[in-house]
Order: sequence, then C-alpha cells, then structure tokens
Amino acid sequence: MIGIALMGAGRMARVHASAIGAAGGKLVLVYDVVESAANSLAADFGASVAHSAQEVFDRSDVAAVLIATSSNTHVEFIIKAVQAGKAVMCEKPLAPDLSDAQRCVNALGAKAGNVFLAFNRRFDPGHSALKKAIDAGEIGHLEQLTITSRDPAPPPMEYIPNSGGLFRDMMIHDFDMARWILGEEPVGIHSHGSCLVDPRIGQLGDIDTACVTMVTPGGKQAVILNSRRAVFGYDQRVEAFGSAGMVISDNPRATAVQRYSSDSFGAPDRVFTFFMDRYGYSYRKEIETFLGGVAAGTPAAVNAVDGLRAVYLAEAAGASLRSGKTVELTSNCDVTWDD
Amino acid sequence: MIGIALMGAGRMARVHASAIGAAGGKLVLVYDVVESAANSLAADFGASVAHSAQEVFDRSDVAAVLIATSSNTHVEFIIKAVQAGKAVMCEKPLAPDLSDAQRCVNALGAKAGNVFLAFNRRFDPGHSALKKAIDAGEIGHLEQLTITSRDPAPPPMEYIPNSGGLFRDMMIHDFDMARWILGEEPVGIHSHGSCLVDPRIGQLGDIDTACVTMVTPGGKQAVILNSRRAVFGYDQRVEAFGSAGMVISDNPRATAVQRYSSDSFGAPDRVFTFFMDRYGYSYRKEIETFLGGVAAGTPAAVNAVDGLRAVYLAEAAGASLRSGKTVELTSNCDVTWDD
Amino acid sequence: MIGIALMGAGRMARVHASAIGAAGGKLVLVYDVVESAANSLAADFGASVAHSAQEVFDRSDVAAVLIATSSNTHVEFIIKAVQAGKAVMCEKPLAPDLSDAQRCVNALGAKAGNVFLAFNRRFDPGHSALKKAIDAGEIGHLEQLTITSRDPAPPPMEYIPNSGGLFRDMMIHDFDMARWILGEEPVGIHSHGSCLVDPRIGQLGDIDTACVTMVTPGGKQAVILNSRRAVFGYDQRVEAFGSAGMVISDNPRATAVQRYSSDSFGAPDRVFTFFMDRYGYSYRKEIETFLGGVAAGTPAAVNAVDGLRAVYLAEAAGASLRSGKTVELTSNCDVTWDD
Amino acid sequence: MIGIALMGAGRMARVHASAIGAAGGKLVLVYDVVESAANSLAADFGASVAHSAQEVFDRSDVAAVLIATSSNTHVEFIIKAVQAGKAVMCEKPLAPDLSDAQRCVNALGAKAGNVFLAFNRRFDPGHSALKKAIDAGEIGHLEQLTITSRDPAPPPMEYIPNSGGLFRDMMIHDFDMARWILGEEPVGIHSHGSCLVDPRIGQLGDIDTACVTMVTPGGKQAVILNSRRAVFGYDQRVEAFGSAGMVISDNPRATAVQRYSSDSFGAPDRVFTFFMDRYGYSYRKEIETFLGGVAAGTPAAVNAVDGLRAVYLAEAAGASLRSGKTVELTSNCDVTWDD
Repeated sequence: MIGIALMGAGRMARVHASAIGAAGGKLVLVYDVVESAANSLAADFGASVAHSAQEVFDRSDVAAVLIATSSNTHVEFIIKAVQAGKAVMCEKPLAPDLSDAQRCVNALGAKAGNVFLAFNRRFDPGHSALKKAIDAGEIGHLEQLTITSRDPAPPPMEYIPNSGGLFRDMMIHDFDMARWILGEEPVGIHSHGSCLVDPRIGQLGDIDTACVTMVTPGGKQAVILNSRRAVFGYDQRVEAFGSAGMVISDNPRATAVQRYSSDSFGAPDRVFTFFMDRYGYSYRKEIETFLGGVAAGTPAAVNAVDGLRAVYLAEAAGASLRSGKTVELTSNCDVTWDD
Repeated sequence: MIGIALMGAGRMARVHASAIGAAGGKLVLVYDVVESAANSLAADFGASVAHSAQEVFDRSDVAAVLIATSSNTHVEFIIKAVQAGKAVMCEKPLAPDLSDAQRCVNALGAKAGNVFLAFNRRFDPGHSALKKAIDAGEIGHLEQLTITSRDPAPPPMEYIPNSGGLFRDMMIHDFDMARWILGEEPVGIHSHGSCLVDPRIGQLGDIDTACVTMVTPGGKQAVILNSRRAVFGYDQRVEAFGSAGMVISDNPRATAVQRYSSDSFGAPDRVFTFFMDRYGYSYRKEIETFLGGVAAGTPAAVNAVDGLRAVYLAEAAGASLRSGKTVELTSNCDVTWDD
Repeated sequence: MIGIALMGAGRMARVHASAIGAAGGKLVLVYDVVESAANSLAADFGASVAHSAQEVFDRSDVAAVLIATSSNTHVEFIIKAVQAGKAVMCEKPLAPDLSDAQRCVNALGAKAGNVFLAFNRRFDPGHSALKKAIDAGEIGHLEQLTITSRDPAPPPMEYIPNSGGLFRDMMIHDFDMARWILGEEPVGIHSHGSCLVDPRIGQLGDIDTACVTMVTPGGKQAVILNSRRAVFGYDQRVEAFGSAGMVISDNPRATAVQRYSSDSFGAPDRVFTFFMDRYGYSYRKEIETFLGGVAAGTPAAVNAVDGLRAVYLAEAAGASLRSGKTVELTSNCDVTWDD
Repeated sequence: MIGIALMGAGRMARVHASAIGAAGGKLVLVYDVVESAANSLAADFGASVAHSAQEVFDRSDVAAVLIATSSNTHVEFIIKAVQAGKAVMCEKPLAPDLSDAQRCVNALGAKAGNVFLAFNRRFDPGHSALKKAIDAGEIGHLEQLTITSRDPAPPPMEYIPNSGGLFRDMMIHDFDMARWILGEEPVGIHSHGSCLVDPRIGQLGDIDTACVTMVTPGGKQAVILNSRRAVFGYDQRVEAFGSAGMVISDNPRATAVQRYSSDSFGAPDRVFTFFMDRYGYSYRKEIETFLGGVAAGTPAAVNAVDGLRAVYLAEAAGASLRSGKTVELTSNCDVTWDD
C-alpha cells in the first residue's frame, strides 16, 4: 500500500480521497491552508492532518503526494515534493500562467516526465476507446477532430476573476485532449470568443462561448467548442474523422431507458449533470493509473510537460483572440505573439 | 456496521462479498460445504471460517446471513437463520421446487416478509427507472409488457440436469420482473418451448428457447422471451406499453462510442457480456437495500413470498408446455394442473 | 402501358390510383357500387367509369383489375376477373372468412398463384431489408420473431361490427408478415386478447389488445402484439432473433432531427402517424411489383394462397382465444378446433 | 401549368427535369451547348429542343427558365432571361467569382429578389425542421452552429482545375446554410485548409479538407467542416446549440433497420451515398417552392443576393487561408483583404 498525502481539502481533493482505497493506496495525511477543511476530510478518511506544507514533504510514510490546492501553489508544491523524493500527481492546471509552467518544467528537468498531471478525461472509457480505435488504425489517418465541451451552468461570478479565463480554466482540458488525440503538436491556433451566457462574465473581461481551431504540421484540423452553459446537462463529446472512418465518443446516458408519449418518440435518458457524475469513473481510473505507475516505477501517463503544453495552447488561444490572427506555435512553447 | 455471514463461497458469494463493504456491512464469517472454498474467500476478505452451518446461526456477531449455497439448502438455511434471529438475504430461487417453496413460506409465517430474496434485476438502474416511470403514471395504464432475456451462451452441459430446467433456473428472474412491473398477479400463463441452441439440452429433457405469455385479471398481457444463447452478448430488455406511452429499458452499452467505416454507419458500442458486468451495479444496490432495510427494521423490498410466486409461475409454465393449454393461476399458488 | 381497372373508389383505391402512373400502368376504368365515388375518382385520374362490375371484366383495354371493394365482394370479383383473363391484384383480406377464402382458392385452382394479394408491408424498405438479411444468412437460423403492430387510434365504432374482428381485420397483416419471415407454416397458435382501449369495442364482442404466439415444425417461435391505440403514433416493428445475430426493423422517423432541451436529451423525431405516410413507399412498390409481374408473366409475389393462410391463422387465433388452448394447424388449413 | 425551359442538359438538369411534372410545371424546351445532350433529355421528357440560348428567351410558351449550365454562363443567362420577363431558377453558384456575382446583382437591381438560387439543402426535411425549431424559439438564442459536409469521394481530377476551388465549389452550400440558420450576416471569417485526401488536388493548387469559422455581430459562432472524402458515405449534418437547447439534423438512414451479430450491436443502416439519394426530396421540394412562388407572384425563397453572399464568403475564406487572419466582412460584400 502506497502512503499518500493529499494537499488541499476541497471538492477535487475529496474526489481523489474517495478513490485512493480501491486503487491500492492509503491516505495517511491531509494538508490544507484552511486547517478546519483538512481536519474534516482527514476525519472522514481516517488520516492525520499536516499543520504545514513542509510536514507533508518531511513525512517518511508518505510515498506519493496528490496536489489539489489552488493553482498558484502548484509549482512550488510540485518542486518541493519531487525534491523530497515523493511521487507527485497534480491537479490541472500545472500553473496559473505560461511563465510559471515553463519555470516548473525547467526546474524539474528530466523529472518532469514523472510528475503526473491530472487530465482525467484521458481515462474516460468513451474517450479512451476513441483513442484506442484511432491508435489501432480503425479510422485510417486522423484528419479532422471536433471536441465539444460545455458546462451545465457558469460558475459563481466570484470564481471568474481568479479563474485565469475560459481558455486556461475550462478549455485547458480540451487542449490536452486535442494534443493527445492528434498525436502531433499543433503549429497554428485561432480563436473566436463571445460573451453570450452572462453579461457579467464579459464585464469581468472574460468570454463564455469559444470556438478554437488548430492545425498540425501534417495538416490535421481540430475544432474545440466551449460554452459555460448547456441547459441539457454536461455536454462532453469528441468526434474524430479520418481517411478510413469516423469514431464518436458521444454523451453517455444515465440509463438505456427510452420514452414514448404523445410528444416523445423514443427519447433517450438524460445526459450526466456535471464532471462528478460524468467523469466519476475517470477519476478512479486516473488514481489507479498513477499509483500503478508509482508501483512499477514507470513514467507518468500524462506529465508536467503535457501540463505546460496545455497552458501554452491556452495562452496562444488568448493571443489569437486579441489579434484576430492564426498564432504560430513552436515545439518549445515559445511566445510568438505580441501582447 | 452490520456483521455478516456468507453461506456459500462460489461465484455469487464472491459478488456479494465484494459489495458488502461499500454497503456498510462487515463480512465476519464464511461457510461453505467445501471448506477450502470458504477458506479462500474468507482470506480474501479478512473474515473467519465457519466449520458448520450451525456455527453461522450461533455466532452473536453475525446479524445478517447471506445465503448463496446450492438451491436445495436454501429453505433449511433460511428457516434456521430466521429462527436464530438473523436477518436473511437469499439467492434465487427460494427453493428448487414449488412444494419446498410453499413449505418455506408456511414455516416462516409472518416473517416471510422479512426474508430478502435476491432478485437483483429490480435494482438495475434501467429497469428500475422503467418501473418508476410506470408508477409515476408516465405511460398511463400498462397494457402490454415484453421481457427479453437471453444469455450469451448456454451453461456447461453438466449444469443442465440439476438446474431445474429453463423456467426455474433462468426465466425465474423474468417471472419476478413481470410480477413486479405488472403490479398484478397473473391469472393465466401459456408456454412454447424449443430446443434450438444445443441438441444435448433437449436430450437432457430441457428446452433452451422459450416464449411464455401471461394475462392478469385486468387484462394486461406479458410476454417473456428467453434463449440460452445470443451471439451479440447478454440481451436484457424490458418494454412496457400503456395507454399514454411506452417505456423501454434497452441494453446499455459499454461506452457511448459510435463507429463509422466503409461498412459501419454509427455502430454503437458492444452490449455487456453477462450478468457480472451487466448487472454489477444492481448487485451492489441490492446489498445496500438489504442492509438499509436491516438497519431501519423495515420489511424486505423483495421477499420470500416473491420467491415463492416466481417458482409458482415457473412450474405453471412447465405445466403449460406439457399440456398446450393456458394454465390458470390462483392467488394462493394452488396447483390447478395435472401432471 | 398496362390498362388497369380499379374496382372500388374508397381510400385504398385512391392510394393505388396515385401509384399506377409511376409504376408503368394506365388507369382506364373505375367501378364502385356508389357511382358518385367512381365518378369523382375517375375524374381526378382521367379514367372512365364502369356502370357495372361486369363492364370491368368485359372491357378489352383492361388487362389488370385492382380490387379494393368491400371484403365480401372480393371472392366473386377475383373469380370473375380471372375467368375473364385479367391479371388481378386484390386488397386484403382475401375473403371475410375462412370458408369463403377456401372456396376462392379452390375455384382458382392453379391460377391462385397468379392472383396478387395486397399485403403491402412485404414491400416496406425496412421490413424487406430484414427479410433479405435473414435470407442472406446474416442471423443464422431464425429462432424467435416478434412483430409489434399498433394503430395510432381505434377506428370509428361503427366500423367494428363489420370488421371481422381484430384478428381478421388488423392482425391479418401480421400473420402474413410472420409466415413470410418465418419461412415455415406455423403448426401451433395461441392467443390472449383483452379489451383495454375502449370498452365499447368489448361490448361489440371484439378485443382491442392482443398477444398471439405461434410455433413452427422447426421450433421457431413468433409473437405478435397488437393494440388498437398507441398515443405516440403508428407502431410498426419487427425483430428477428437467430443463431448468429438479430435484425430489427424499427419505426422509421420523419427526419433524422434530434432535440435537446432542459428535459429532452437527444429526442428523435416523431414516428409516422398511420399507414398512409408510414407505408406510402410500400404501396408504390407493391403496384410496381404487381405490374412488373404482369408484364413478365411471372407468378404473383404474394398470392391468393397467402391470402387464405392469413385468414386461416386469424380464425385459429380466434379459436384459441375462445378455448384457451394452443390450436393445432395443418398445411391444408383444416379446422381442428371446435366452436 | 407553367411552361418551363431547361438550360443545360447535364446531371443536375436531369434531376430538375424529373421533378417538374409533380411540381405542377411542364417542360417544353431544352437547350444545351452540346445539342445531342439537349436532344436526349428533351426526348426523354417529351420537350422540344432550342437551337440557341436566345430561342429560350424568345419563346412565348416559356414562363420560367431553369439554368443548369456551366457556372460561367449563369450571369448572362440570368440577366437575359429576366430581361425577357421569364421567372428564373439558377443552379449554384450564382457566378464563378465575386466580381461577376456583384455585376449580376447590380444588373438585376430590385429583380435580384425574384431570381431563385438553387440552394436545395434549405429544402431538406431534416435541415428545414432544424431551422423551424430555431425560428420557433426551441433552442432560445442560437450561439454555436456546426455544419459538417463531406463528400463520399473526390471528383475526377479533371474537374478540380475549373471547379473554382473547394470554397466556391463545395463549401458554397454550407455558406448558404450558415447564413440561413444564423439569421445574421457574419462579420468575421477564418479558414484552415489542408490537402489530405489526394495529393493531386494539392498539386492543382486546391485543398480537400477545410475548417472554416465565422462570427456574427451578435457573437454567434459557426464552424464548417468539409472533406472531399468520407468512406462511410455522404456526411451531411447540422448542429445548432443555443441558450435553451440544441437541435441536430443528423444523417438520415436508408431504413430503420438495426443489426446485431457477434461483432455488431445494433448497427444502424447505411447513410446515403451522395446528393442524388440524400437530397432527392429537397430537389423536388425546391422546384415546387420555385413554381409555387412563380404562380403566386411572391419573391424567391432564396435569391440572387443569397447567391452573391455565398460567393463572398467563399472568396473571403480563401483570403483568410492565404493570410492566416480573420477576414472582416461587410454587409455590402466589400473586399477588405489584400491578395
């Protein structure tokens, strides 16, 4: 059993805590800057509480650290945990902005490949079946990829100003999905962004509706559609079109029940409501994959460099939105745009 | 935490054992006539081993007994466990034949309503959503019910002779589903049966393909279709048609992935392979329901009388197959047929 | 161009009249016992009016006769038309009862195979694709067949007394479909029937909800479900299960549009409303097939013997309903039941 | 009956010719620069042959002219036909390039609204049901629109050089669809284009795979995906997402048949193969709409200005592809880009 410390005691921390046991780990320690939150989570899972972040890194019975604190602490905690010889899994985003993310990867050096970045959607059964089908050659060469990702409802307005903006906060997942499925780093990116859902979001300088397109060196095209609101639920779909076919990872349904009435003709059951139910399995599979890698001593399935690249695409998308141009991307995550 | 003893250490016992923890119980004791099987299961789940059935009933730290032994021991174990003051959950069927089932219910008297009979399909999310939709009046008055239930492949031939025959072994689940959904006890039943899957099944005096129809006092009609083999997987569907609509609980899919190729045009993902994956959730929900009822002191959601009535329908179906007539059914499970 | 006379000028006659032109025929003559109806239809299609049935048989420019008069005139008109050397297509049913149907086939002798019986559903693209898939071996040996056939709403009450009853009036189509798909004549039939839709139907001695099962010599099982009312539209489905797979001819939809809203999650478009829109194509294809056969001098694709056998099954279903027994069927359409 | 002349005797001309009769018109005259083609089509439909284009405009029994000649003749024929007082329906594109299209609309003046431009997809039952749902407010405010349009296979290579390029030849339909559904003129457009299907297309200076995005003044976003090849058939889908829901016009299927086998689990029937079968109904509905408008004296449902705007978007998409920038669009179809 791998002894695990959890940094952060918020909503995502609780998701991870619930999954640790079945994945073959043991939660031994919880840290949160709000100690009462740490106490409550620790009590629920029979763990003890760390009174400082340093305590986490010092504890010998902690082999792995799960970082689910606020974004601006990720880099520091990752680096310290790695230095202390811990295995690390960190929530997205790697860092709140590109320079921090660059700094993190530089500091980690070769160890960046060991830091597991929690892009959970890669572990969703539907999305991963799609990826497997592509890798198995089922659709020939991938040519066009469409990722649709819409939240059921916008976050509380107070969340917006510190979110980093839609590209870094929400589309970050889709950037990772796109890179993972494309199997090539994009070389061009272009954005449209609008504020259609709630005017307060626009007043806070953000957008809530976005359409981003990318191309790869091989000419593959990717589209990402985001909205902060979908009245029918959490809209999470991927469509991959290729030279020999197409595979779609559609919204799964709560059940396979269909309804007929005088105005309904085989209506499928509801889609899931949000990430907690929609991606529940992926969170468990993610921890399992992380701990499996720790036990086997293998590199992380998704790592800090993946985290950096997703932040890079998010910032480039922002630059394109401001300039109205296709932004050129480099393999070194160089900033090619003026701001 | 409710202390639980498991009688039987076979496949279904293991399914139940895995679900006990999350449902708020604790497996303390395992009994099996083959002691090595009990040892193995007990070791895997950190429980101790009972060297006799009686030991199960005598243990004061056992509040609930899960019976998953061979059918011919069910009645004896149920009665003894109840007499010992234990809560009881028993695998289907209640008894290998109708007279034993009757004897069991008579012996239990008023306590028959406390014995939980493990008709797990009632706890499947799709089937239970269908039932809820009917109860909520979504389809008006139920008029025609179709239950399709096909196994992926026949059992080993050595299983057939002691199975009790297709009606008592396999269709027993569908009889319970039909009664539960109809909300009325059938008054007539008719059967067709064929041996189309494997001639050895016919040589053993059994059928492998069946079509049973029933009517209720209110004129509702139910059809049950069974086959011992479906090459595409475990075919488990329910369709309820009524005066104001229709609700179908279709086969759920492994994922929501769809495939297109030169000869495939949006093909859905595979259906489940057998009861272990198809009904996995229902087994967990079943134990949860059982233990919740034990904790709350409420009657069993499915009880020994339900178990008896399912056996009654199974035997009546057999009688109809032999006579070619609609067999009349009574509310007391009287045998109205000649054999 | 084949010169065609239409006997009958009602709703079905008009359906046929509209299809004649595109199928390569020419409507030259219309007869109806209500001459004003004949006048109206003839005027709309540029045909002349026959003042007696005999005139139809006497006209030398009439090569083919389409009979869409009331059921009790079918036998007489068929026989006379055949005697006059005309090609004949007749609406279902062949005759209002079994003895008349027998008489018709006997009188026709070898020519029974040339009389085209208008079981239009055989020409539906979905149902005929299902049949082709079976014939091509896609599902291996057919084992279980389910035909669901529900009207959107019951006919006017005044229609019921002369309809011949649900089995002869409505299920007649399904009996033909079952025979056609099974590829074997059933040897046993059993019925349940209820009056659930409208109590006036029961008061008129008929049923409105029926469940009929059949078996073939090879042990194939068939289920037919009928209802006189389905609030969601015209419910017309066929499901064929076999040793190597299953093929379903589901209800087609008006369009491939899907709707999402706060309480709808990909709802498909409506099913068709009744036979005129649902089976529109099949009526055109049917005439085309009939006229193609006439031109080529080949036997009818569906003939008077098929018409007789469907009536036989309908009457046997009625006998089973009265007796509660599986009725035995013979290849000669012998009546094996007491009434 | 409206007397119609057909200019052009190629594939599309034949589609229109077949639909004229049922739509209440009469084909009286056929013209083609290749007179043998005109002879053949005229013979098949019982029309006479015009030996010059002028003859078409001079004929008094011709009330309406259908122009289905090569693109570079459209403007001249439209203007002459209108001057001759004929009603006009013209195949897409209005003109081979923007300056010609501008010239045509300028020359027509107020009569541009009477020239019917044959964007047949507006008349597809699925797409038009989607449009109606939006107009009825079913999805609230439209926010994101995705149009997927993929041909089954690229045209012959000799077709490419004179096609005008993918944007003007193929995506022209999607530009019209986007404008029609958006209900606002786009103000920005951006393109990615690749040659992935056949390298010869790239050698001819064209692309075969494109991803175009647009925004409207109200911030609505539209994506168009095109490919010259889809191995599974003709891929024609529209998805409209809005503040209160989503409506999808998916690929219709040949039938509602579903197939199950050891490796197929409810596979839907094939999608259509190309525009002739997929959009067959829309061609008939289009002519009907055109002739209905002529009879009623109402403006064209889709007109020459729509034709101009589609060409404008096509050229702007090309400019964006060359510059890598979002091209700004004006309501006057001004060219804002350098070339």
